[in-house]
This record gives sequence, structure tokens and C-alpha cells, in this order.
Amino acid sequence: MNAPVNDLLAAGVCVNPFPVENGELVVGGMPLSRLAARVGRTPFYAYDRGLLIAHARALRALLPPAIHLHYAMKANPMPALVQTMVGLMDGLDLASAGEMKVALDAGCDPRVMSFAGPGKRPEELWQAVAAGCTINIESDAELPHIRAAADGLGVRPRVAVRVNPDFELKSSGMKMAGGPKQFGIDAERVPTTLGSIGREGFEFVGFHLYSGSQTLRSEAICDAQRKTLELAVRLAQDAPGPVQVLNMGGGFGVPYFPGDVPLDVAPVAENLRVLAEEARTTLPGATLVIELGRYLVAHSGIYVAKVLDRKVSRGQVFLVTDGGLHHHLAASGNFGQVIRKNYPVVVGTRMDATDTESSSIVGPLCTPLDLLGDRMELPRAEPGDLVCVLMSGAYGYTSSPHLFLSHPAPVEVLV
Amino acid sequence: MNAPVNDLLAAGVCVNPFPVENGELVVGGMPLSRLAARVGRTPFYAYDRGLLIAHARALRALLPPAIHLHYAMKANPMPALVQTMVGLMDGLDLASAGEMKVALDAGCDPRVMSFAGPGKRPEELWQAVAAGCTINIESDAELPHIRAAADGLGVRPRVAVRVNPDFELKSSGMKMAGGPKQFGIDAERVPTTLGSIGREGFEFVGFHLYSGSQTLRSEAICDAQRKTLELAVRLAQDAPGPVQVLNMGGGFGVPYFPGDVPLDVAPVAENLRVLAEEARTTLPGATLVIELGRYLVAHSGIYVAKVLDRKVSRGQVFLVTDGGLHHHLAASGNFGQVIRKNYPVVVGTRMDATDTESSSIVGPLCTPLDLLGDRMELPRAEPGDLVCVLMSGAYGYTSSPHLFLSHPAPVEVLV
Repeated sequence: MNAPVNDLLAAGVCVNPFPVENGELVVGGMPLSRLAARVGRTPFYAYDRGLLIAHARALRALLPPAIHLHYAMKANPMPALVQTMVGLMDGLDLASAGEMKVALDAGCDPRVMSFAGPGKRPEELWQAVAAGCTINIESDAELPHIRAAADGLGVRPRVAVRVNPDFELKSSGMKMAGGPKQFGIDAERVPTTLGSIGREGFEFVGFHLYSGSQTLRSEAICDAQRKTLELAVRLAQDAPGPVQVLNMGGGFGVPYFPGDVPLDVAPVAENLRVLAEEARTTLPGATLVIELGRYLVAHSGIYVAKVLDRKVSRGQVFLVTDGGLHHHLAASGNFGQVIRKNYPVVVGTRMDATDTESSSIVGPLCTPLDLLGDRMELPRAEPGDLVCVLMSGAYGYTSSPHLFLSHPAPVEVLV
Repeated sequence: MNAPVNDLLAAGVCVNPFPVENGELVVGGMPLSRLAARVGRTPFYAYDRGLLIAHARALRALLPPAIHLHYAMKANPMPALVQTMVGLMDGLDLASAGEMKVALDAGCDPRVMSFAGPGKRPEELWQAVAAGCTINIESDAELPHIRAAADGLGVRPRVAVRVNPDFELKSSGMKMAGGPKQFGIDAERVPTTLGSIGREGFEFVGFHLYSGSQTLRSEAICDAQRKTLELAVRLAQDAPGPVQVLNMGGGFGVPYFPGDVPLDVAPVAENLRVLAEEARTTLPGATLVIELGRYLVAHSGIYVAKVLDRKVSRGQVFLVTDGGLHHHLAASGNFGQVIRKNYPVVVGTRMDATDTESSSIVGPLCTPLDLLGDRMELPRAEPGDLVCVLMSGAYGYTSSPHLFLSHPAPVEVLV
């Protein structure tokens, strides 16, 4: 396909995967200014279908065929994008009944959908039992609701156990396991839960272990995967049936900031090959699943805002745009970041410019938090130019407080 | 009225202004469990109309009559609440055309509405000119759009100048002035803008200076107000007409965290009395306006979520609720806070309980960021109990990423 995809394959995920033509970023095969005209207004998120497909295929080619790939919808649940992912993945991971609706509408087979999360509401559990997807049990408190749904609906529930292991994913952006956690059932208590599942007569699907996310170090991921398999083999001894599926979580990180080195997937692929081979004897019949969200979609998306004003205040240049924190909280540095760093930002309509200056990208909000780029060296831009925040395909649109200051919500397009 | 309001008057704003009856928080005169039944589902935000009114009146009684009070809608633009505030305030401050619509629908006179913010879109400027509200100009780039709107609509625009002063509000949670800023026109360049306004023949309304927000130190506020008046008097020399309105901003903070001492408003009131007296000679005919958002509404609101599960993981108690970060970003510590601190949280259905334990309040999201209370000493709660985050009337509902993980949005009620 196009050259950037090759870079992307080589590097795991690269930071700017979009081609440039006549000084403009090309997204979904369309120059940015034309795409903006097609969308009809700014700001908007655009996701590049070609990049999504190429990246998923490239990853698939790297990984051993025995490994199944699931898409964690929470990263980006845009319906058209999910529809595309259904065709590329072996299954979907859901975090709410809202995501389940989108997955079902996209035509995904409920047997390859798994629903995880603490605090599942009773009605969500009923919905999941009715749909026939796998429920990753995170607390024994879910069992009576699943029982009631089974009786009320006359359906045999499909359940797996989400385990809170006794280890964590090292070097991860977010740790979701080890020590006391709201996620999953503590490993040492899993046998009790497995006993309950057996007595209830639910269909036992397997285990789900998600130890953390956003790691750029392959050895940390390999280490967690190995421990995950070992723990699953141990826990399987108390299971009411064979493990059909072992969801090993994800954790594959993407580079956002200067100095971030893209994850090297090759050692992870080799590790998975070895583990899959081992599992043929230690967990016979089990499918090993890797669950990825951000890693599959982050690079394919950009957030596009129009420059309304180039304002110079006491020597500092502010590009005031029609977009900001309310549309892209993570890029403003207010979503779990301790230290604010600049996301990769480009002036998508001046990609060939050589006349650069230090500019801050701000939005229309009445708060100094509304900062998409802090004193970045960028082409000198003018009102009408389009500023793009790259690496915005995951945890962008849905992770942002759209209602803040009552501005219009951004548009989302898949191109 | 009720006792808590008296506490509130005494202390500026107190942290828990709601009465307790039969072990339950009473909001808008209704026990919490009954209110939850009236709302029909959890989670929800509830704002107490009686507290809003009592607090506004108490503040009014403290301040000199010459000072006008404006409500900054950005803090909470819920239409019913804005309607209430219109009846209590002398005017409204708007941050977007979306807020302007709510203000107009609430029956507010456009002549006491002022519209501030960087990056006003051209169509927003047209709307503001058409409505007849005051536009606080933050950049010379707004002038041609206002000119075009004036010509196109045959309306004489009402404009003020938002000034980026050469000082800042000390000890403030957010600094919005001093040094290079996207907000307002640098003080030293204001005379040029005033000249342009005169040549355009726009109606000159006055000045807007907003130096910062969320200060608990009255002397810092007094200092900023004094400097604001001095600067306005100096700038008025170049104005194309008399200053009708001087919006001195706000900055009045509220206590959220243990150790926060409520703002003592009395010295601020005395300072305003002196300044208003001075202004009768230095800015004859000018109305002095104080613009408050958070201070007027924060204490009156609570966010209510239901406990779905009391989960013990490796000795730590997690109250897993149906609400979380997606509904209340600030309480999770992810909205501008450098160090996460616990918002005031109570179990609203167990206010008399003596059996307490260390509990973490979490939500249904698949991220460790989803934390409304970190190891707080709280009554031992069970599924069905209602957890309340106090001090949630400002920057709660609209400042949160409702779409995150595709859960239902919270309800908002004014009781």
C-alpha cells in the first residue's frame, strides 16, 4: 500500500503514518483541506480505514496463527470503526452494555464477544446473558444476577473468570493487577468462584487476565504473558470444565511523546509462539487471545481543529483553534498524566513549510488547562489552517468532556 | 431557613450544607433515598434550590449594594439552575453561543449578558451581536467579524475589552492573567484596540479583567481587585466613551479538601465598598461587577451513585458503584489536579452510622483512574447504599467525559 504503512510495520507503530502531498496531510486518501470540506465543519476526528486494515494485517502476519486477536472496543467504539474491526479481528472485548449494542449492531458473533468490568449493573448482566456473550466475572456478587438471568431467560450463561493475579505488568502506563484491586477476582480466591460456577451449571469459558496497559517494553509484556499462562494452568485444576479461552490481556503500548521508543513486537510474537506451543499440552484445547485496544487504533486517528486566530501575547504565539480540551482531554495532558507532555501535533495544511516558530495551540475554553500544544516548534500558521493532533484514534473522542462550556461536539469520520 | 445554611453563611461556604434526617442526607427537602426514587435511576446530580437561593442572598447581604453580581454559567449551565440564577443575579457571563442560548431561553436580558472567551467562532460573534449582549473582545481578530455582523444585521454591537493585565491573582488554583496568555488583550496593547472600537462606532461598554480562579485567601482577591480598578482607570483614558461596566472577575474559591479554610468574604466585601466609593470619582457612572461561578453553585450540588458491590480484595474494601470518573472527572482527580486528593464523600444513606471502615469508592470503568475516593474512612456500606460526592454543583456534569466506555449519562435534577 502506501509508504507510511511500511514504516509502521517496521516500527510497530510510528507517530506520523499519514502521507503528505502538496504540503498537506493525506487522510483516507484525501488531502486534509478537502476532507475538512467533506466533513463540513471543524473540529473533527478522522480515522484512516486503510491504516487500520494495514496495521491489523501486519500485526496478524507477525503473530503466530494460533493466537486470536480481540479488539477492546473501549479504545474507540465508533460504530463504523467497530464494523471494520469485526472484519479484521477474531473477537471483541466489551466494557459495557452500550458497547455490546454497538458490537451486536456491527454483526459480531456474540460467542467471540467478552464483557469485562467491575460494577456490571444487573440489567447489563441480563443483557449479556440474553445476547449469549461471555461474561468475565469480576466479583462473586455477579453470580446471583447471572443465575436470575439464566432462569428468567432460559439461557445457559457463558462465563469466564477475570483474575486479579499476584503479579503486575512492569513499566506499564496503568497497572490493573497485583495487590488489592477493583478488577477481577484475587487469584487465591478464584478456586471458590470456579466451584460456584460449576454448581450453578454455567458454561465455563475460561480465564481473563489483564495486568496493565500502555507498555513499550516487550520484555515486560513477555514476562506478564508467561506468568499469565502459568497462573491459568494452575487455576485450571479447579475449573469446572476445560479452559476454552485464555484471554491474556494486552498491554501493547504506542509512542506518544518525544523519546518514546515504539514497542518491538517481534519478541512478543516469538514469546507467544512458545507459549502457544506449551499450552497445547498444559491447557489442551484452549485458544489464547490477545486483547488490544489502543495499539490497534491510536495511530490511525487524527483530531483536526481550525486555527481561528494567531495571537501574539507578550512575545508568545498562541494558535487559538476551535477545538481543545473538551474534545481531546488526553492531548491536553489531563487524563491520567502526572506531567504534561505534548502529543504529536502538526499543521496539516503546511506540512512542507520551512518557516517555523514556537507556538502554543489553545482552544476556546476559559481555562489555562485548554492547551493542546505547549510552545512547540511548528510552521507559522494563520487563521484557516488546520492543526492536527496525531495518535488520536484511541481514547480521544469518547474520553473527553464534550459538554464543557457548551460548545458543539466534534464530528467523527472513518475515511 | 435550615441550620446548615447558617453554617454556610458563617463560613463562606461549608463543605456539607445538607441536613440529615433519620440517617439520610436531605436534599431539596427530600430524604436521599426518596429523591433517588423520584429521579428514577442512578447516578445523578442533584442541586438544592434552597441552598442556591440562601447562599446568593447571604452573599448579596454581605456585599455593598453598589456591586453587581454576575453568574458565570460555565460553572453549571443546567437550564433550570440558570433560570433560578437569573432571578438572583444582576447578569450572566457566557463562554459560548451554547451558553447564550440557555441564558436567552431563561429570559435573561441580553444587556446584562457578557460573552467572553478566546477563539470565538465568527458565527458565535454574529449570534452575540444579533442577541445584543456585550462581547468581551479578547483579540483584535474579532473586530472584523463584529463589523461584518453589525453591517449584516444593522445592529450596533456592544463591546467591552477583556484585558490581560500585567499582574496575576496570587494563590489561585488557575491563573488566567499576567505574562503571555491566550486570554484577553495585553494591557499595553489595549489603547490600540480602544482606538479601533472608537473608529468602528461600536458601543463601548467597558472592561473585563479576570485574573484567576479558586482562591481561598481574601487578601489575594482584594489585591487583585485593587489593581484591577487601578488598571481600568488608567485604560479608561483611551476609551472611546465612558466605562459603563467594569467586570472585575471573581476568583472566590471554595474548600474541597481537608485543611482547606473557607474564604472569608467579609474583608473582600469591605475592599469592594472602598473601591466602589473610589470608582464614583475615578470611573464615574461605571457599575462594578463581580463574576462568580463555582462559588455560587459548588456547595449546592451532589453527585449520587449506587453501591453495586462491596468487594474486598487482599484486605482492601472497594465500594464499586454505578458512577465514576466518566460522570465526575474532577472528583477522580483528573481535571487539572497535580496531586490527587479525595473530594468530600459521604454514604448518604448511612449518615448516622458509627461502624466505619477504610473504603475506596470506584466505578465501573476498566481503569485505575476511576477512583472517586481513595481509602476513606466511611460507614460500612452495602449494595444499594447511595454514595454522595459533595461540592459537586460546579464543573461536575459538564466537565466529565460521559461517553467514556459507553455507559449511560447521569441525570441532572434541581430540587
